Amino acid sequence: MEVQIAVAKVNKYAVSESGDTLEVVERPNGGVSVVLADGQSSGRGAKAISQMVVRKVIGLLAEGVRDGAAARAASDTLFTEKQGKVICTLNIASLDLNSGTIVLTRNNPASVFICRGEEIDCLEEESIPLGTSRNVRPVITEIAIEPSLTIVIYTDGLIHAGKRRGMPMDIGATIRAVMEDQDPSPQMLADTLLAEAVRLDENRPADDISVVVVKVTARDGDNVRRMSVRLPIEGVMRFS
Amino acid sequence: MEVQIAVAKVNKYAVSESGDTLEVVERPNGGVSVVLADGQSSGRGAKAISQMVVRKVIGLLAEGVRDGAAARAASDTLFTEKQGKVICTLNIASLDLNSGTIVLTRNNPASVFICRGEEIDCLEEESIPLGTSRNVRPVITEIAIEPSLTIVIYTDGLIHAGKRRGMPMDIGATIRAVMEDQDPSPQMLADTLLAEAVRLDENRPADDISVVVVKVTARDGDNVRRMSVRLPIEGVMRFS
Repeated sequence: MEVQIAVAKVNKYAVSESGDTLEVVERPNGGVSVVLADGQSSGRGAKAISQMVVRKVIGLLAEGVRDGAAARAASDTLFTEKQGKVICTLNIASLDLNSGTIVLTRNNPASVFICRGEEIDCLEEESIPLGTSRNVRPVITEIAIEPSLTIVIYTDGLIHAGKRRGMPMDIGATIRAVMEDQDPSPQMLADTLLAEAVRLDENRPADDISVVVVKVTARDGDNVRRMSVRLPIEGVMRFS
Repeated sequence: MEVQIAVAKVNKYAVSESGDTLEVVERPNGGVSVVLADGQSSGRGAKAISQMVVRKVIGLLAEGVRDGAAARAASDTLFTEKQGKVICTLNIASLDLNSGTIVLTRNNPASVFICRGEEIDCLEEESIPLGTSRNVRPVITEIAIEPSLTIVIYTDGLIHAGKRRGMPMDIGATIRAVMEDQDPSPQMLADTLLAEAVRLDENRPADDISVVVVKVTARDGDNVRRMSVRLPIEGVMRFS
């Protein structure tokens, strides 16, 4: 089998820094974790918060701390520092090779979609962001790693897309439309969701938007791990 | 412009953990850093060393510490812990949006290739691994971000490929052959280098091998950041 992870991420219109931070890190047992945080508001302040949360979480995961405990620790740190005045959402998707599962940890009102073949489920149990109070608990879902599994995680920019024009996005319907294609790549699914949101916002995203797609395929190829990153850098023109 | 980073990575034959650790992380200014470490020997011990070095470096980079200082700090930490008995190579490639440059930090005897159009240079100034003594200095090279720039970084598994059969790999010639193609993607270049090494090792890599390619293109597309990861997980079958 092969696990593929795809990310597509865009900043709020005319804001140079995204309040969303995403990192993919190796776990001590050889699996990987995707850690996505969305700091309250946008720009530099939100970036500092989401970076702090992600750093805290990946530092703990690297030490072997379990995902749920890492989320609670990040929440306590944020609450202690900001006294509940600043909140931050968090999603962790971990490929755990010890248990043979994908562990989803969620402190984010935004739901998560789970697709198995033609069946599309929505995880929408109530979940509150980090930093809101002492004793914030994450919602944890564990799913066996098996072919034809696709998981879609996103920040609230995707939910709010189009709302200011009264045309909110139907995320489930967009996922369903793409999944009806012949075995879409996870990057294609992430790109399509992001493009639809940006279109609904008339090419001026009203918020930072991040979309993560995790897909398990039956593919048995080489044993090569691959990663690719594409980073537009128009900003650098200012300095060169 | 767009910066593309591609990674291809394989374990030593019949060893479940790679002694090479690679992470791509956001820098505080919005750029990214690729951090690659290769711990002495192979398997679990080497993994622990290279993970420790990478964690140390990315933690410091996140705090705004400059790359060279982060490399020195990681070396001192390793030397203090292991008294010079365990060494680890380190490469950092940072896209620095403040200076409009790519900063290459190297504590690795393995050279680095820089391609600009048809011109291929090799950075081969002497460079020693971390942890060998107090006061280890990295070799630092700063290159302006401009279209048609391609940088190739690798661990010594690539250099040693084929040597046990007396057929060492000519890395420069392989790069030149791929670059003569019509604008190869960085993933294609990384995959070709890795595949050639694995072929010379008769499909049983004698060492962990990691290849990183950084490419700058003139592409002006959307402002979307993208990342994709592909992870073979045959190992998980044991647990499921």
